Amino acid sequence: MRVAITASNTQKFTKNTTFTLAEIASRSIINLLFDSRIQRSEIDGIIVSSSSFEPYLSNIISEMVGLKPKFSTKVENLCNSGTSGILLAYSLIQSEVCNAVLVTGVEKQDSPGNKLNWDITRGIFDMPVHWASLYASNHFRKYGTTIEDLASISFKNHRNANKNPNAIFFDKYFTLSQIMDAEIVVSPLKKFDCCYPCEGASSILLVSEKLAQRFEQPIWIIGISQNNQGASFASVTNSLDSIMSTKLAAKDAFNQADLSPSDIDIAELHDAFSILEIMAYEDIGFANKGDGKKMIRDNLLSTNTRGGLLGCGHPIGATGIDQTTEITVQLQGLAKQRQINNVKTGLVHNMAAAGTSTTIIILRN
Amino acid sequence: MRVAITASNTQKFTKNTTFTLAEIASRSIINLLFDSRIQRSEIDGIIVSSSSFEPYLSNIISEMVGLKPKFSTKVENLCNSGTSGILLAYSLIQSEVCNAVLVTGVEKQDSPGNKLNWDITRGIFDMPVHWASLYASNHFRKYGTTIEDLASISFKNHRNANKNPNAIFFDKYFTLSQIMDAEIVVSPLKKFDCCYPCEGASSILLVSEKLAQRFEQPIWIIGISQNNQGASFASVTNSLDSIMSTKLAAKDAFNQADLSPSDIDIAELHDAFSILEIMAYEDIGFANKGDGKKMIRDNLLSTNTRGGLLGCGHPIGATGIDQTTEITVQLQGLAKQRQINNVKTGLVHNMAAAGTSTTIIILRN
Repeated sequence: MRVAITASNTQKFTKNTTFTLAEIASRSIINLLFDSRIQRSEIDGIIVSSSSFEPYLSNIISEMVGLKPKFSTKVENLCNSGTSGILLAYSLIQSEVCNAVLVTGVEKQDSPGNKLNWDITRGIFDMPVHWASLYASNHFRKYGTTIEDLASISFKNHRNANKNPNAIFFDKYFTLSQIMDAEIVVSPLKKFDCCYPCEGASSILLVSEKLAQRFEQPIWIIGISQNNQGASFASVTNSLDSIMSTKLAAKDAFNQADLSPSDIDIAELHDAFSILEIMAYEDIGFANKGDGKKMIRDNLLSTNTRGGLLGCGHPIGATGIDQTTEITVQLQGLAKQRQINNVKTGLVHNMAAAGTSTTIIILRN
Repeated sequence: MRVAITASNTQKFTKNTTFTLAEIASRSIINLLFDSRIQRSEIDGIIVSSSSFEPYLSNIISEMVGLKPKFSTKVENLCNSGTSGILLAYSLIQSEVCNAVLVTGVEKQDSPGNKLNWDITRGIFDMPVHWASLYASNHFRKYGTTIEDLASISFKNHRNANKNPNAIFFDKYFTLSQIMDAEIVVSPLKKFDCCYPCEGASSILLVSEKLAQRFEQPIWIIGISQNNQGASFASVTNSLDSIMSTKLAAKDAFNQADLSPSDIDIAELHDAFSILEIMAYEDIGFANKGDGKKMIRDNLLSTNTRGGLLGCGHPIGATGIDQTTEITVQLQGLAKQRQINNVKTGLVHNMAAAGTSTTIIILRN
């Protein structure tokens, strides 16, 4: 049985409001339901994705928005929570446990998911930017990737964010030289190479093939896979060149879809740091190892059209949902001022914790 | 496709040890894997059920026990987390996303899941025992249930716990009069009418029909359903008589299994408070409304043979897994000194937050 995404809603990513998690999530759901051709009573599953500590969050949100679903749970998988929720929703529908599952990602700026204290393999270098800087230094040394390449990634994604009213940097314009000249955080990474934790919510509706007939532009999940290599930076890979979970998840998803990377028209790549977009090009298979920089130098693929994590901000549990939302609206032709022409097949790449886990979703209209 | 439970392991429920969540869970998984006819590389899913705040817990545990699964996530649904995880594992296998999913529930005694602060409909009466006492008072007034009936539930479950080495009260014997004469917590509920939060872990392995052939005694999931009515006590039901989520989840599970309550040989009922076992008899359909007390007075069904929450203790995220483990080993004939003869069909009843959500699982050997 095929599973479709038929509706989505993202609320503006912002910072430090007085709204609670449940309020932010509820607003996104209510807006989704307002637009969508489905009754509350038909939604028989809800999955809430969040790194927050709020207990029973999926049931709290259900009550606030007037849902009494058959299935409800919260999932937590750090930055990979959102697409973990989508994979579970896909599975609930495929297995006919549910017919229509709402997946909502929500986070506050002070999310405890910003840092993984458990991973003592990182020593005192325990912020995410520490492992990201190692990836970047390695890529510079081995493959000739440059500070200009990283800045080009950040510049592109910030320019894309200028077309996305939900992005936290929607109305902030940065020139390439501002990005190049920003202060160093951990060498070689500078301020604009790093995403910004923020608050926000994004919701998406997955439905069965039968229910999808009611919608004009269902977007079909034709490949979906996840891979987990552990939790510590030390377990990501045997070298600093590749992120194993991304390679394995992408390979499996392409097999399911019976497609290859050259079939992808548009992609959301997990650019928590600019270097990760370069590595994603390579590990997913858009470029050979070491050639990721060519993708940006030669502008070979439409990526991170919503602005990526760099331009949108990174509300942890919401990011994977908003990435999927972006590909969905692009394939529906509803992306307004940031619409890319003639896109039929899109890919979502969502990761957590230095790349210890990755989810890949391939969508088609 | 059918889904089977083929292995399980529970570690002794205890209190306030110095072990971490991940250590407690890992011990349970390692023991399960030691006994089971499956390789680590064949386990392609892990779901960790916990109310704890530890981020990325499922990946941390995976790394500690040497698993690199395709899918990994933590789920949180308060006291209903364990069976939510089992339902998701069932769905992942049914949908052929995974072939073998490990579900591990784990909790420390000071779990934040012990109280739902969000539910302000309870006013200052914000402990679980407050809503439980309202259920009990109502049952006394309307249906003639007595303090003796509640004490009989607690006595039975504590006696069962005396046969379960994993129960926290395994080596504590309480007489019926000790239970009757214990101090009142919130009238009419006394000390032994209330379960005891504790720490512990329980793990269970779900596999596809094909993998199940490798095992001598697969136990089949023939009905599984959940229902959610919200998060606040005010939304559980229109009266204090029934728990709506239990009625709806049970009805759906019996429909799937094409069975009725009279077909059930053994059941684990969510006795977080003694009155809840009485209400479960009625809401699941073992007895007519108001007649739950007859089930215990006339000893009509084998229930809570592991000791229930009252006798085992209640490590929140682990409880639903250990309930399912108990029915599994009973149907396998491996329950040793507490084995019930001639049991073929069993039922698990797991709830959260005053009964706002319930999961029902029906198993057969």
